[in-house]
Amino acid sequence: MPKTDIARRVYNHTWKLDPIIRSLLDTDFYKLLMLQMIWGLYPKVDATFSLINRATTVRLADELDEQELREQLDHARTLRFSKKEMIWLGGNNFYGRKQIFEPEFLAWLEDFRLPEYELSRRDGQFELTFHGPWMYTTMWEIPALAIINELRSRSALKAFGPFALDVLYARAKARMWAKTERLKKLPGILISDFGTRRRHSFLWQRWCVEALKEGIGEAFTGTSNVLLAMDSDLEALGTNAHELPMVLAALADSDEALRQAPYRVLEDWQRYYGGNLLIVLPDAFGTAAFLRDAPDWVADWTGFRPDSAPPIEGGERILSWWREKGKDPKKKLLIFSDGLEVDTIIETYRHFEGKVRMSFGWGTNLTNDFEDCAPTPTGGLDAISLVCKVSEANGRPAVKLSDNPAKATGDPREIARYLKIFGGKGRVEQLVKV
Amino acid sequence: MPKTDIARRVYNHTWKLDPIIRSLLDTDFYKLLMLQMIWGLYPKVDATFSLINRATTVRLADELDEQELREQLDHARTLRFSKKEMIWLGGNNFYGRKQIFEPEFLAWLEDFRLPEYELSRRDGQFELTFHGPWMYTTMWEIPALAIINELRSRSALKAFGPFALDVLYARAKARMWAKTERLKKLPGILISDFGTRRRHSFLWQRWCVEALKEGIGEAFTGTSNVLLAMDSDLEALGTNAHELPMVLAALADSDEALRQAPYRVLEDWQRYYGGNLLIVLPDAFGTAAFLRDAPDWVADWTGFRPDSAPPIEGGERILSWWREKGKDPKKKLLIFSDGLEVDTIIETYRHFEGKVRMSFGWGTNLTNDFEDCAPTPTGGLDAISLVCKVSEANGRPAVKLSDNPAKATGDPREIARYLKIFGGKGRVEQLVKV
Repeated sequence: MPKTDIARRVYNHTWKLDPIIRSLLDTDFYKLLMLQMIWGLYPKVDATFSLINRATTVRLADELDEQELREQLDHARTLRFSKKEMIWLGGNNFYGRKQIFEPEFLAWLEDFRLPEYELSRRDGQFELTFHGPWMYTTMWEIPALAIINELRSRSALKAFGPFALDVLYARAKARMWAKTERLKKLPGILISDFGTRRRHSFLWQRWCVEALKEGIGEAFTGTSNVLLAMDSDLEALGTNAHELPMVLAALADSDEALRQAPYRVLEDWQRYYGGNLLIVLPDAFGTAAFLRDAPDWVADWTGFRPDSAPPIEGGERILSWWREKGKDPKKKLLIFSDGLEVDTIIETYRHFEGKVRMSFGWGTNLTNDFEDCAPTPTGGLDAISLVCKVSEANGRPAVKLSDNPAKATGDPREIARYLKIFGGKGRVEQLVKV
Repeated sequence: MPKTDIARRVYNHTWKLDPIIRSLLDTDFYKLLMLQMIWGLYPKVDATFSLINRATTVRLADELDEQELREQLDHARTLRFSKKEMIWLGGNNFYGRKQIFEPEFLAWLEDFRLPEYELSRRDGQFELTFHGPWMYTTMWEIPALAIINELRSRSALKAFGPFALDVLYARAKARMWAKTERLKKLPGILISDFGTRRRHSFLWQRWCVEALKEGIGEAFTGTSNVLLAMDSDLEALGTNAHELPMVLAALADSDEALRQAPYRVLEDWQRYYGGNLLIVLPDAFGTAAFLRDAPDWVADWTGFRPDSAPPIEGGERILSWWREKGKDPKKKLLIFSDGLEVDTIIETYRHFEGKVRMSFGWGTNLTNDFEDCAPTPTGGLDAISLVCKVSEANGRPAVKLSDNPAKATGDPREIARYLKIFGGKGRVEQLVKV
């Protein structure tokens, strides 16, 4: 009986690549929901996505090897949806609905591959952009972020020997488990994994999802990661993202059309999805402006996902608005997903308990919390605020204002124009950690 | 490339035994030091060793499967010292000395095997005894204890699935590493592993030893476990145990010979060992009596290992005695080894810093601290106070008084006789946790 499998050992030490992205399903579910709509309604729109590292002090291009990054991106481009994956997408129920994806869309998806990328370096940062049809470029957001974040983890982990790595993961696991022990004490709380893009690594995200399953049981409602949902028989969860209003706003030919863009997104969305998928993401150009100008039917939607205001303040604003519109917040849903950690989850839960239905989409602090886990200090494992945002649509600049000016993206002159139209009311600068 | 090694998998699921003791070196070093002396001076003496579970509320015979215990004990009896082990024992330096073991002793050791055992059950406890020549039965102490302790861990761990086990060990590792972080802050502290007999498991002891190596570096002086010392190129550490005075006391033909027995042990010991091995274990029949009646030459020995008094109080008593005998405690060594945990180590270190050389032989709380590590509560992983003590020598009852009456062993009438001779001064009842 050999103690070491020689063939495997030889395979291991001749390894060329340990791929970070191994499946096109290793993405967030909302990308597929949005993709179907983009494919259906905006197949001719071009959209450019660009990497933005808000943590400018972290010089990514100095920390990471460009060649390794290219190899990972190139590998992701070789992927296709497998037969098993296609069958699952077509046959699984999502949000209680059969066949959420149309057969024609799935037929098109069968041939999908990630489009080309452009990569250069400037001032210690990577300039990574994806040009082309929106219905292709949109799919790069999550794998591009996951690749860079995991390369960054790997780079930091190179400093450690096997024992130190053992301690590091033991501590991270002990910490994660302690989080589940705090959360399971909150009756009726609902938590889901939204941590794909910022994860420490794929395997670590999988471990965290397992920890939630084991640790909080029924309170764990599912994961945004489609691959993990499929492999672990979990609910795939997600709604929609800022890219929808951003692209439609960029395409708007008049100030009035720009003002209406956020609501047009909702109309488009409603043509495809209903029920629990009718979640408003209100803050692309400021929640105050969104609520001020919103048609009454927006109040009929199931809920809101406040994504850049402080959760209690932002949530209360939406509750007031529902009440103004004659709706009972207790029948409505708030999905919190911005910079959550256990303390903010508990505080928010306690504040809104009994007032509104709520759910927590837990991201970075779930899947990438390694602060002080390393036996010797390293900053390389601290999560950074890295995003991949739409920067242009059909050649026009795209803009996000957000409730938090620190999260705004786009050309400064365009931002000024948007601010004139939407106003800056209620926008409060907050430190963006992740 | 197979993902699973089929042959290994089949081997695994047809496993008959996962042996706890896989080498006769998997014992404490002092057993070998004592063995050489017993072999040299007392080859005709019979000594009976008996298992004593001081944690009477833990009904070992109900918790553990008798058949499994027998299989483990039987497996240990199949072991012989391997060639490699014999060469290492002969060739390695111990305590800076070459050839600490005589060639004749090693020649005899080559054929050594553990003698028979007797196992029965009474009142939910195992009665496990080893009868026969002292130079054989003495070697059962450590493997017998390690086997029962690990069977107990295994039994408790059966309740957990793979994820829960992962969390359990992650927490135990995180806790162990936190201990090293506290200890490494103490300049000049010296710590060794004395945790073989009470370990959670062999693999866990090995991990803890590795953690000390990585975590406290030079402050880690070695391990009592001979196998780990050999495999990891560590110092094998140990001195002598209560069985020596207990057997010589039992053999004493008069009260005066009984009174002298503890010093006769030291004379015997000195014929075999010197230097750092001249460590007095003073508490077999009470430290106060030992110091009161000790000949002056005892103060020339390198140090003491106070083993049942509270460390500060017990240590101070020895310091006073050294001063009375005109010795400078700064040149002397105290080895603390009774029920140590990080807090007591730190407190004791701070108290004696600059007053005396000291070293900490860290046992149960090093290698078997799993309290609250399990995701769901279990008492089965709490270490218990299990010992294997000499109970008879040449048919006469053996007695230990100890500084702590809770640690006394032997026939009550004999204990009363010993108390008449040695006195009960300074003996203070303390809770024996481990």
